[in-house]
Amino acid sequence: MRIVVAGGDGFCGWPTALYLSKQGHEVSIVDNLVRRKIDEELHSNSVTPIASLEERVQKWKELTGKEIKTFVGDLNHYDFLRQVFIQTEPEAFVHFAEQRSAPYSMIDREHAVYTQSNNVLGNLNVLYAIKEYAPDCHLIKLGTMGEYGTPNIDIEEGYIEIEHNGRKDTLPYPKQPGSFYHLSKVHDSHNIMFACKVWGIKATDLNQGVVYGLHTNETEMDPILNNRIDYDGVYGTALNRFLIQAAIGHDLTVYGSGSQTRAFLNIKDTVRCVEIAANNPADKGEFRVFNQFTEYFTVQELADKVKVVADKLGIQANIAHLENPRVETEEHYYHAVNTKLRDLGLEPNLLTDNVLENILETVIKYKDRVIKENVLPSISWK
Amino acid sequence: MRIVVAGGDGFCGWPTALYLSKQGHEVSIVDNLVRRKIDEELHSNSVTPIASLEERVQKWKELTGKEIKTFVGDLNHYDFLRQVFIQTEPEAFVHFAEQRSAPYSMIDREHAVYTQSNNVLGNLNVLYAIKEYAPDCHLIKLGTMGEYGTPNIDIEEGYIEIEHNGRKDTLPYPKQPGSFYHLSKVHDSHNIMFACKVWGIKATDLNQGVVYGLHTNETEMDPILNNRIDYDGVYGTALNRFLIQAAIGHDLTVYGSGSQTRAFLNIKDTVRCVEIAANNPADKGEFRVFNQFTEYFTVQELADKVKVVADKLGIQANIAHLENPRVETEEHYYHAVNTKLRDLGLEPNLLTDNVLENILETVIKYKDRVIKENVLPSISWK
Repeated sequence: MRIVVAGGDGFCGWPTALYLSKQGHEVSIVDNLVRRKIDEELHSNSVTPIASLEERVQKWKELTGKEIKTFVGDLNHYDFLRQVFIQTEPEAFVHFAEQRSAPYSMIDREHAVYTQSNNVLGNLNVLYAIKEYAPDCHLIKLGTMGEYGTPNIDIEEGYIEIEHNGRKDTLPYPKQPGSFYHLSKVHDSHNIMFACKVWGIKATDLNQGVVYGLHTNETEMDPILNNRIDYDGVYGTALNRFLIQAAIGHDLTVYGSGSQTRAFLNIKDTVRCVEIAANNPADKGEFRVFNQFTEYFTVQELADKVKVVADKLGIQANIAHLENPRVETEEHYYHAVNTKLRDLGLEPNLLTDNVLENILETVIKYKDRVIKENVLPSISWK
Repeated sequence: MRIVVAGGDGFCGWPTALYLSKQGHEVSIVDNLVRRKIDEELHSNSVTPIASLEERVQKWKELTGKEIKTFVGDLNHYDFLRQVFIQTEPEAFVHFAEQRSAPYSMIDREHAVYTQSNNVLGNLNVLYAIKEYAPDCHLIKLGTMGEYGTPNIDIEEGYIEIEHNGRKDTLPYPKQPGSFYHLSKVHDSHNIMFACKVWGIKATDLNQGVVYGLHTNETEMDPILNNRIDYDGVYGTALNRFLIQAAIGHDLTVYGSGSQTRAFLNIKDTVRCVEIAANNPADKGEFRVFNQFTEYFTVQELADKVKVVADKLGIQANIAHLENPRVETEEHYYHAVNTKLRDLGLEPNLLTDNVLENILETVIKYKDRVIKENVLPSISWK
């Protein structure tokens, strides 16, 4: 299958591009490399050293004989995007190319406007490009479980049947996103649903949980193929951040009580979920939503797990409760359905001590690269 | 009260600014005058001749002694918006300043991107300006009944209590907007709800039905105070368009079967609803939604009503059913709640034959201004 991976230089996109290439698909990466520029803006870095995109695909070709084409440019430049569609004739367009940090979107007005403009308008361009140049292309769009917030009822996959005053309808599941970033994903979902309805586009929205892990079988093949791992207060997500904090002797920083429950999955499952979606495309005009996660934990539970594993490796990890920089409910009900990807064959990589140990060992190898002053949260929701 | 009316040069904004000024409020108009430029782009016009904004406020001062300050500029230019907030210190910010035509947003990619960028990012700027310069200012935001679409259950005012698998929650009402314009209003609503939650902003979202009518008691005082009336296939809404078609001997163009039911209100009620919202502000942190309409009709019923009134004036009006340029369900359930504004004192101006006759008579006076080739719809949703 001819597959474009937009955002293919990033944390989820890069391993996905490699995995799909290994499965024999004809993969093209589209990326504006902005994540590397944001590292400069924030004076931050990945714990793992990251080769240039050129070196990465060159090494992949050397090791596997498989070619990944690269297009460096911005989805918000429609002339560029048009060329990508004309040259690649995609059958699937995997869209990871959005600003993905909630704290980054909350830095100030400029960062909020940038996040919504980049994400929402870029995605609008993708919808128009599919309509105009590849109407049968299946859009596989990365959403987030954070679109739902933490309602006091079960979270379904995209839609919910509502009975009200004696009548019934199946309607889009109500959304309660918790940052300007999460809001951008909600806006995307609404725009895509509409494009499916009026233009007959096929789309799958992958409402992904928080991703942890660093290696996939492909990125492990050579250090040049390394995936990036973020630990700073802006881009570092809970579990990866705790592991890196343990490695450098920093307190594990739990925000607030730590009772916030979130959905998680291993990066190895991310790449597999995208493959499952690609192999089982949505129907013409269908806007399909999959909840893409395998387990959920409270933030406190994650910190506890990291502490136990660190202990085994002889590292004394302390858990520190910081004042919560986010505005979020800490005590809440959480139950989300995630059967659709399982029904299509996903076999989850669960969060075992062994998995944690493996990540921790790699992180320890690179711990000298950590810039310690970036670890604490510096961005408040208020 | 110090009130800013953003979009105060437009069809709803201008009569609102006059009405609030007459009630003794200190009114400032903010407008980038883009609606006038769009007339040039579309080679279209208002049936009524429209004076410049400068002449309008000058005439108002002459007639009433009341001053309305004007700020000509764009909400998307934050330096400008900041100055507006610093100079006006608003207690209420009435936000009409968005691209408001569904067909315009569906012309092509550029117009879709313009609509969402202008509306969503402009509104984000307003939220930040309130947070930074006037945290107690009440945001009165114009939304649309079109955010809800046509669900098969009753439409509530913004929120719905859902019982699901034995648990309950009150959640944002699911949205199914039908154009990139309507989508922009849904995005706005989500952004505002979040800003209320994290920053304690007070906001009222007025989900307005389709507005008809031209005069209010204030715009009637002098031709220089005329309100604009659109009739073209892009900006003309159903009832006003039918009246103008009758006046010029054009068929009344009903899209599809005409069974589509929509919510309506008189422009005289628009201005009163805004006053009611301003006089009864939302609480700190509250995101309040009012459904702002007084009656609903099918499109066919409106055409029939216009035909009857035209007959009385000796005009033979034919009803023509055109292929529907929109993608929308024509046969559907429609029942929407609208009690909140009524409970706060709204006394509706209902759609009587007398009201229709008055509008028709004015329109006949100006009928030579109509550019006939603009009347038929030229923009398809597909």
